[in-house]
Amino acid sequence: MLNNISVIGSGSWATALVKVFADSKIHVSWLVRGKEQADYINANRRNPRYLSYAEIDPDFVQPTTDLQTAIEGAQLIIFAMPSAYLKGTVESIDPVWLHNKQLAVSIKSFVPDTGYIPSLFVAKYFEWTDPVIVLSGPCHAEEIAMEKHTYLTIAGSDPQRIKEIGESLRAPYIQVVYNNDPSGVQYAAILKNIIGIATGIADGLHYGENFLAVLSSNAMREINAFLSEAYGAVRDLHDSAYFGDLLVTAYSGHSRNRTLGKLIGRGMQVTKALGSMKMVAEGYYASRELAAVTRQMGLSLPIINSIYRILHEHANPFHEFKLVEKLLR
Amino acid sequence: MLNNISVIGSGSWATALVKVFADSKIHVSWLVRGKEQADYINANRRNPRYLSYAEIDPDFVQPTTDLQTAIEGAQLIIFAMPSAYLKGTVESIDPVWLHNKQLAVSIKSFVPDTGYIPSLFVAKYFEWTDPVIVLSGPCHAEEIAMEKHTYLTIAGSDPQRIKEIGESLRAPYIQVVYNNDPSGVQYAAILKNIIGIATGIADGLHYGENFLAVLSSNAMREINAFLSEAYGAVRDLHDSAYFGDLLVTAYSGHSRNRTLGKLIGRGMQVTKALGSMKMVAEGYYASRELAAVTRQMGLSLPIINSIYRILHEHANPFHEFKLVEKLLR
Repeated sequence: MLNNISVIGSGSWATALVKVFADSKIHVSWLVRGKEQADYINANRRNPRYLSYAEIDPDFVQPTTDLQTAIEGAQLIIFAMPSAYLKGTVESIDPVWLHNKQLAVSIKSFVPDTGYIPSLFVAKYFEWTDPVIVLSGPCHAEEIAMEKHTYLTIAGSDPQRIKEIGESLRAPYIQVVYNNDPSGVQYAAILKNIIGIATGIADGLHYGENFLAVLSSNAMREINAFLSEAYGAVRDLHDSAYFGDLLVTAYSGHSRNRTLGKLIGRGMQVTKALGSMKMVAEGYYASRELAAVTRQMGLSLPIINSIYRILHEHANPFHEFKLVEKLLR
Repeated sequence: MLNNISVIGSGSWATALVKVFADSKIHVSWLVRGKEQADYINANRRNPRYLSYAEIDPDFVQPTTDLQTAIEGAQLIIFAMPSAYLKGTVESIDPVWLHNKQLAVSIKSFVPDTGYIPSLFVAKYFEWTDPVIVLSGPCHAEEIAMEKHTYLTIAGSDPQRIKEIGESLRAPYIQVVYNNDPSGVQYAAILKNIIGIATGIADGLHYGENFLAVLSSNAMREINAFLSEAYGAVRDLHDSAYFGDLLVTAYSGHSRNRTLGKLIGRGMQVTKALGSMKMVAEGYYASRELAAVTRQMGLSLPIINSIYRILHEHANPFHEFKLVEKLLR
């Protein structure tokens, strides 16, 4: 049984995870950025900066600003931060601290400049021989804050281990889905973030629902093509971690990636659109890393490639989408 | 080349089809309900009752109230009306009128009390040996009226014939997708209408996007299970006629089926909800016919079955969805 975990990260997704575990009566040691933030959480039962309407139960949550303190005593360490900070964080960890612990990641992008998905990066860095667990959606942090019925995917290669975590999650609004394809789940999440930018651009360009439906169904085909090529495991793409995760981004008002896309579709320069956002749209960075990966694989993914050109090669969204239109079916 | 067609039906979807063909410079003989409606269309370039903001080019559209007049001179007859009227309409047609013509259907439900999908019903009734063509989405009529970029599926077993129709469609906002699985496309459309009611109920019950994504991905699995069992043809469910058609209903503000579901989810009695709607929500009737078909097949489809119980057996939506929740993954 899981009694003590550590969440490393204090953005909105990390805050949602802290809430889920605390509401499951599991003690959470939570690494936050500064003492002021820790004090605020202790005093007000909520994170001042992100997802501030999520109620955090102080009986089960101990904020700390010290990495070693956050980790010691936890059975499971969950890395849940923007991908850009993962490398620096793991480099600050003395591997001795991790003795007898389990590791999990909940990050939807590549680790920058490595081409690695988070679980593989962490495993490689710590020369970890145990399977690294992956927590995934489809979930918006905002709806966890509101305690809306949510399915949380726990992916890992050891069925016993993911079951142990799953059975500990007793928050009444959470339902666990098990999955044995942790790499596929991470890649699908990366791809859907890029697709979320694509649907946002389409929306910004005033395409309608008829187009959006075809864009999304073709996107699913690209995700399928990529996963089959990269990770040929047997998987049912209708499992919620793949198709569901795409939908929760592609058709959402909560998605940052979709918001970024919409600004670009409306005509804002990419750098300005990025600058105007409070939170990180992971799809922007992921699309650059993914382009390198797909080039190496010799894969042609029209929508994904088009978003890469718009984000990183100054392509005109209007013209790109005129080209994409013709390639969809 | 297609120069003359006939559209039988004058609801919003029929109106959208008339517009698409007229904007492709194809002459349309259009069967409407009364002389007044025909005169209004001639005088005002639009259908007074449905989709009244769609501009209809009078140079290419000839409204008529006479069935034989509508049919004679047309190379292709398209039946596009609520399924409830199909039987009465075909019974009014003298088979001699159909000599040397092609038949198409664009109706998303079973023919009531027959268990037949429209293309098979028409083929059987007229002892038609030529393939009956199917026109399908994903399209909202409303977006065709607004000339939004739209993909129209033309499904049929004769590639040459569907290509001939497709190449005649030159309306600038229309892109044609060919499909060789006309029965599968019709069944998928029927199922997605029922799923549209399901997502509407979920919305009415205040479930969020996290749940909706999982509901929709499980729905796709049910559609897949049904189609594999009923029509084991090789098909790519990511083609827009399947997955795209589901999305355009499940996530739409335009869908009547979703609207019906939302009223029911909010607590309105089914009969009152039906009575309050101006247009037919085909999914209501289809769910009864489909229940008979799946019972015969011995198939268990949790979401589809649950919607059947809510619509036709007075089941409580709140309780049904609590049961459905647990069956999703």
